Amino acid sequence: MAKGTGTNPQAALRRRNLSAVVHAVAAGDNMSRAAVAAEVGLTRATVSTLVDELIAAGLVTELGAQRPGTVGRPGTALALSPRGPAGIGAEVGVDHLAACVVDLRGTVRARATVEARNRGRAAAQTLGELDGLVRQVTEEAVALGLRPAGLTVAVPGLVGRDQHTVLRAPNLGWKNERTDLTVENEANLGALAELWLAGREKTPAQAPLTDFIHVSAEIGIGAALVINGNLFRGARGFAGELGHVPVYPDGPRCSCGARGCLEQYAGEEAVLRAAGIAPELPGRLKALRTAAADDDAPALAALEAAGRALGIALSGAVNLLDPQAVVLGGPLSELAPWLLPGVRRELGRRVTGGGALVVESRLGRDGVLLGAAYSAVRAVLDDPSEWTAR
Amino acid sequence: MAKGTGTNPQAALRRRNLSAVVHAVAAGDNMSRAAVAAEVGLTRATVSTLVDELIAAGLVTELGAQRPGTVGRPGTALALSPRGPAGIGAEVGVDHLAACVVDLRGTVRARATVEARNRGRAAAQTLGELDGLVRQVTEEAVALGLRPAGLTVAVPGLVGRDQHTVLRAPNLGWKNERTDLTVENEANLGALAELWLAGREKTPAQAPLTDFIHVSAEIGIGAALVINGNLFRGARGFAGELGHVPVYPDGPRCSCGARGCLEQYAGEEAVLRAAGIAPELPGRLKALRTAAADDDAPALAALEAAGRALGIALSGAVNLLDPQAVVLGGPLSELAPWLLPGVRRELGRRVTGGGALVVESRLGRDGVLLGAAYSAVRAVLDDPSEWTAR
Repeated sequence: MAKGTGTNPQAALRRRNLSAVVHAVAAGDNMSRAAVAAEVGLTRATVSTLVDELIAAGLVTELGAQRPGTVGRPGTALALSPRGPAGIGAEVGVDHLAACVVDLRGTVRARATVEARNRGRAAAQTLGELDGLVRQVTEEAVALGLRPAGLTVAVPGLVGRDQHTVLRAPNLGWKNERTDLTVENEANLGALAELWLAGREKTPAQAPLTDFIHVSAEIGIGAALVINGNLFRGARGFAGELGHVPVYPDGPRCSCGARGCLEQYAGEEAVLRAAGIAPELPGRLKALRTAAADDDAPALAALEAAGRALGIALSGAVNLLDPQAVVLGGPLSELAPWLLPGVRRELGRRVTGGGALVVESRLGRDGVLLGAAYSAVRAVLDDPSEWTAR
Repeated sequence: MAKGTGTNPQAALRRRNLSAVVHAVAAGDNMSRAAVAAEVGLTRATVSTLVDELIAAGLVTELGAQRPGTVGRPGTALALSPRGPAGIGAEVGVDHLAACVVDLRGTVRARATVEARNRGRAAAQTLGELDGLVRQVTEEAVALGLRPAGLTVAVPGLVGRDQHTVLRAPNLGWKNERTDLTVENEANLGALAELWLAGREKTPAQAPLTDFIHVSAEIGIGAALVINGNLFRGARGFAGELGHVPVYPDGPRCSCGARGCLEQYAGEEAVLRAAGIAPELPGRLKALRTAAADDDAPALAALEAAGRALGIALSGAVNLLDPQAVVLGGPLSELAPWLLPGVRRELGRRVTGGGALVVESRLGRDGVLLGAAYSAVRAVLDDPSEWTAR
């Protein structure tokens, strides 16, 4: 969606200013034009012009007079429009498909999920069924006055730098699948959702995280690194492969060919097997949670072992990266009560300088889908000029 | 040495332009003023003025007419001065002290090394002896017409963000030692030297590395991460602690309190013990190299085990970071012929996407000291205005 950087310095400056203003409105709490001007360091007149453009384009809306009781003429409060451009996200899970639409504020406005056995199924068939869900939520969003700005599809696998090739997704049985859709690794989207959306209800004391390791899991173990407020992709786009960090180097053979990878101890399949739950069972994760909540000994032992393995692999990662925090997100966050003690114990023992902050994602297992949907919104906020020029 | 960013935009612009010009002269091969202007995107007139300032300040020198045979009036070739500001580096090893001076070109102009038993010795005493070496090389440099621009001391330990506190250096027995000197972790300096100096003799095909893991070792295992062309320090400045990445989680107890850290398998002491060489022996690393070169079975087995352990820990690091390369530097580079096979084998087996480029540093064990010395030079190149204003 983003325009090229262009060569006209005036146009580039205008684009930057528009983006600064819309980001200020997004971050602020019903700010007036004057407050936005103070925030972005532009004159009140310039900001007023830009805000008028953003209102005309339907990106920003006026909420009426701001907080009575403030000194002087009350400014008109500004907010992102609930009927502006919208981001569409879709998710290919091992046994589900999902799609949703978020507005500029990051609020979910339409959503659909279906169970689907995607393991070993042809990619074209899976993506065809997903297309039906995407059409459904898009129609709902359009009926609400939203304008689709872009679609991102989350996949549990390695994605090429072109964002159109799934290099390998072993849990789906995909290899070098090329698509016209924009695809992204699910762990990356979970981490981006954490970066973009989890800090929203921030208190002054709790600044948003800018440097963290985000760990999620469905069948494998996915992780993503956020460094200096940006997703870190690595030289080939393969960064964050926590699932194949060696934990016990002579341990069982992994699907990747190596021995003793984290996935063999904390991946969903390994944990379910250890807990005595059939990995094919529909609702198996819920069954695992229920068993653990009922103090079922094999389930507790399986989760304890998984937490310990996760803690060992994360100790290495934290010793290397010294992040502000480790965030457990995705389906893993629902098992956090049983995983966290082992994770924290190993980190406490093994990390130079003593432990690390480990937190559960506030987004839970929705993070990936939200991150996929919000990607297009983020592109609009980063360059709103495409929408104001229409 | 760096001035504050200041509030005068004209002065800030002039500082940036001066730095761009001096960096272009540094990177170029006897460039003319016109070539510098083309490189940095400023007018010929502006560049001429800036170059004249840099010449007057003694940072840049004219080499005479450039390459006869080029079309038009030959430009005067520019180079960094061999008698400009100079960087002083010093190194505290477990059993040596070293100091050196490099000129703006990164060439070593004075150097001194002494053996010293620094383990368990009072920090003040060690730094006092180091001061003597620093004075000696500084006097030599001044006699050559160089002007000292700053001193950095490399230490084998964790350094606080203030760059004046050694939080802990277990191999020296230091804990929370505060000094007026600027101190830096030796692994960080080795990595910076690699970033700044190793790519100098670059061929067009071999672009300088901007994303790599630099591994070095004296007694412990030190590593540092370079990400996007910058040293990555982490949230508390503790990033790069490869030595405490778990390799065999239930292995022997490490000095850090944890079990099975890499240091217990590939640290110098562990390797020497396994090779049957007394860890206190002067010249012990040379003895190890000689034994390995003579096909001494315990030495070969010790290095093979170390290479394997290093490869396991680095597999985790590469899976997380997906760097362009892993660089073996420092004293470790001298053992590379025996370590590399094991490292490469483990990486080949365990890294998603298949292996990683592993190279020996071209700087060898000098990297740390060169990085310490070049730090001050780098500061001059990044902000030459302090020198032109004198």
